Amino acid sequence: MEFTVQQIADLLQGKTEGDNSVTVRTLAKIEEAQTGALAFLSNPKYEPYLYTTGASAVIVSESLELKKPVNATLIRVTDPYSSFSTLLEYYQAAVLASKTGVEQPCFIGDTSSIGEGHYRGAFSYIGNNCKIGSNVRIYPQAYIGDNVTIGDNTTIFAGAKLYANTVVGSNCTIHAGAVIGSDGFGFAPQADGSYKPVPQIGNVVLEDDVNVGANTTIDCATMGSTIIRKGSKIDNLVQIAHNVEVGQHTVIASQSGVSGSSKIGNHCVIAGQVGIVGHITIADKTTIGAQSGVSKSVKETGTIIQGSPAFDYKQNLRAITVFRKLPDLQRELEELKDKK
Amino acid sequence: MEFTVQQIADLLQGKTEGDNSVTVRTLAKIEEAQTGALAFLSNPKYEPYLYTTGASAVIVSESLELKKPVNATLIRVTDPYSSFSTLLEYYQAAVLASKTGVEQPCFIGDTSSIGEGHYRGAFSYIGNNCKIGSNVRIYPQAYIGDNVTIGDNTTIFAGAKLYANTVVGSNCTIHAGAVIGSDGFGFAPQADGSYKPVPQIGNVVLEDDVNVGANTTIDCATMGSTIIRKGSKIDNLVQIAHNVEVGQHTVIASQSGVSGSSKIGNHCVIAGQVGIVGHITIADKTTIGAQSGVSKSVKETGTIIQGSPAFDYKQNLRAITVFRKLPDLQRELEELKDKK
Amino acid sequence: MEFTVQQIADLLQGKTEGDNSVTVRTLAKIEEAQTGALAFLSNPKYEPYLYTTGASAVIVSESLELKKPVNATLIRVTDPYSSFSTLLEYYQAAVLASKTGVEQPCFIGDTSSIGEGHYRGAFSYIGNNCKIGSNVRIYPQAYIGDNVTIGDNTTIFAGAKLYANTVVGSNCTIHAGAVIGSDGFGFAPQADGSYKPVPQIGNVVLEDDVNVGANTTIDCATMGSTIIRKGSKIDNLVQIAHNVEVGQHTVIASQSGVSGSSKIGNHCVIAGQVGIVGHITIADKTTIGAQSGVSKSVKETGTIIQGSPAFDYKQNLRAITVFRKLPDLQRELEELKDKK
Repeated sequence: MEFTVQQIADLLQGKTEGDNSVTVRTLAKIEEAQTGALAFLSNPKYEPYLYTTGASAVIVSESLELKKPVNATLIRVTDPYSSFSTLLEYYQAAVLASKTGVEQPCFIGDTSSIGEGHYRGAFSYIGNNCKIGSNVRIYPQAYIGDNVTIGDNTTIFAGAKLYANTVVGSNCTIHAGAVIGSDGFGFAPQADGSYKPVPQIGNVVLEDDVNVGANTTIDCATMGSTIIRKGSKIDNLVQIAHNVEVGQHTVIASQSGVSGSSKIGNHCVIAGQVGIVGHITIADKTTIGAQSGVSKSVKETGTIIQGSPAFDYKQNLRAITVFRKLPDLQRELEELKDKK
Repeated sequence: MEFTVQQIADLLQGKTEGDNSVTVRTLAKIEEAQTGALAFLSNPKYEPYLYTTGASAVIVSESLELKKPVNATLIRVTDPYSSFSTLLEYYQAAVLASKTGVEQPCFIGDTSSIGEGHYRGAFSYIGNNCKIGSNVRIYPQAYIGDNVTIGDNTTIFAGAKLYANTVVGSNCTIHAGAVIGSDGFGFAPQADGSYKPVPQIGNVVLEDDVNVGANTTIDCATMGSTIIRKGSKIDNLVQIAHNVEVGQHTVIASQSGVSGSSKIGNHCVIAGQVGIVGHITIADKTTIGAQSGVSKSVKETGTIIQGSPAFDYKQNLRAITVFRKLPDLQRELEELKDKK
Repeated sequence: MEFTVQQIADLLQGKTEGDNSVTVRTLAKIEEAQTGALAFLSNPKYEPYLYTTGASAVIVSESLELKKPVNATLIRVTDPYSSFSTLLEYYQAAVLASKTGVEQPCFIGDTSSIGEGHYRGAFSYIGNNCKIGSNVRIYPQAYIGDNVTIGDNTTIFAGAKLYANTVVGSNCTIHAGAVIGSDGFGFAPQADGSYKPVPQIGNVVLEDDVNVGANTTIDCATMGSTIIRKGSKIDNLVQIAHNVEVGQHTVIASQSGVSGSSKIGNHCVIAGQVGIVGHITIADKTTIGAQSGVSKSVKETGTIIQGSPAFDYKQNLRAITVFRKLPDLQRELEELKDKK
């Protein structure tokens, strides 16, 4: 996609300054931009880059006063940051929208239906009895098992796998390699020390506006549903075990894991590499620091915890400060004992 | 699949009470069940749900005395829990068994053989010189490299990848996205600070009844075999490095990692997010707590360890209790010194 | 592939001793080798195995004096270890080289080009506007999005996924299930507590000689590029977030994660399950111990750190030693207080 600076200026209701026939085809940071790129200047700290940037065009404030000559064509707007964000959204939407139609070969069961405006990439697979909404994009090599439901405007990237009976809402994004609905890790110990698999017949439900990162795994419930509620965002390589419930608008960063049957509240923030044991409840608006191990329920809204095992993050910070001085403490204690 | 309550009762050698023409098509917990579901009541604590459940039918004890009227049809049996477990197993077996035949397009090398009763999903790939047993299910987009052997009744879910020369036993389950046989992480440092890959020409052997979770990775041996012995169960997102041996009936929970050439015993239980360094040995029946870092061999059978680095779990628990009070300890020590 | 011992001896400029018509088809350790295998003896500690090995042939030093009769045919060379390494490299190169040609069905966009000597496996996907070099191997079910560039001699294993605009250098290896270029985890919190996705329009650049392990995830930059520089080696299940830069010849072991915009230096060694927070800089030649949590920049070249949070590894070791004795310290302190 290529646009003239004038077309961009019209879209943003801005005014051009310089050669308005110049064309741009990508967006970039002002300090990294090359020919063909459109950048923006909002923070005055970055103004020096305006005079050296390789960008073909730069969005600047209507009130900016130039201190030196500028090579790039300028687009003057009221709020450069907001205008640039708008363009970023247009850009990404255009890239996604450019994927439509059906590439061959791909597979869809006779009894499945899919709405208008969709994209099905080559080697994508849709089983039987699936109900898939409109404007859904299913990238190459994605797998949709039997009886899966998917809402409108959802994107399933290359090679993501949805086991049978998964329910996905509207406006969801599931990244490449994510696995939704694999068996929960349930094995009954037998008298001879071996393990017998406990059948896992539940499913996974992702509500609307859920984001699942690359190579993340979400197990189905033993019975019933593992649920990720509306608006929650899950990063790459996260593990969500059977029968877990993640509340609304909760964020879970990369490589964290939640064990079976735990319930995470709404608006929580869980940093990276956190582990949460099974069968506990985490209150709304809880914040959990990176690499924490959470072994008990969190009952109070707005709690902030850290550590392995995790406790109040301020107390943890103070304890860690002393931890580093432990050899000194030990020595001082020895000295005191010797003085007796 | 839909069954009448009478059909279920006949199967379980139970007696119906109420409308025995009612049909059910799924299994659910009594407190969550809806129309069309069959539930069970075993624990008396859940009896109140019997009078409010949406289930179409409920399996109850032959000796249960009703305290209120019940909407659901009852199936009276000797042991409701055991009867329900039986049904769960039938249910899951039926779902798996319903997958047979070959979907097109799929790929199989000329020199490979596969036994009776198998399922090969669309876009699945089987290389050359593979020997695959009977009743094996290979889901869509699974990859079986050259010279792979797979025993009877094994299931390879969608998009799992088995590199060339992998050996898989009977009754194994490999979940979506698991990678078996990728190169071990071996690089020889060169004089100029760069690394030269060490060729990895070994393979991976999974014995019978092994379970590998979604997106788990098991590297091939440098030479020889990385081995997972009979009956061991490995959860999602676990890393097993080159030349590791995991003993029989050992359980490894999600996001744990075992480094190169370590040997894990039989009947061990390794919790989530554990790290085990390379070239050590873990005795039989060792239990390792979540997020532990194991840096030394465990020599005594039945040891329980915890912590990073890990040591005796009771001592670890006591040390952690004091850790949280470190700022108090430091203050008390300062006071004592001042008193001198 | 099968070779006579004489053919091997000619290749290594060695001399055979015993039946030089014996054939070998694999390489193995002397203590594990079976019929058909070629082993080597370099370390005198292993000499006893020479007299019991099942190997068909063994590479030994030209100066070795036999103490007992040997069943295997011997190949005498100047340096057995070096000769065996040479054979290992030949072997792996031959296995890779045996994959050429195009298996059907596979998909390539009209506007993409690919060089000579390549392998494209069945169900592999190459989008539009891709430029792919010579001798590139793209295994079954691999995904190459639009506008991707790949250098010569690179191998993309089964089911690896490269999002649009990814740039991969020459001589790279990307293992099965790795995901390169998924969206960075960027969400702007809204007034109502929900999150709005921040468009991620950058890409990932892997320079030459980079190795990416199985099921590892590398996110694209928000704008600009996430970069892995020449010669760096990344193990399985590693997470590299948006806008990260990993320097040259740096090694990152399994299950480690680097958060957004952090810059890792050249020649660093990062052990397994390490977490590195966002927006920090790690100096060249830094070593980070397993399970460490790095929360601050490392400024000095050659620093060694450990712990969560990480600090000087020797100090950490000393603090941990005291940590284990904390209950004793507490008791001693109580006793001192009581004596007052």
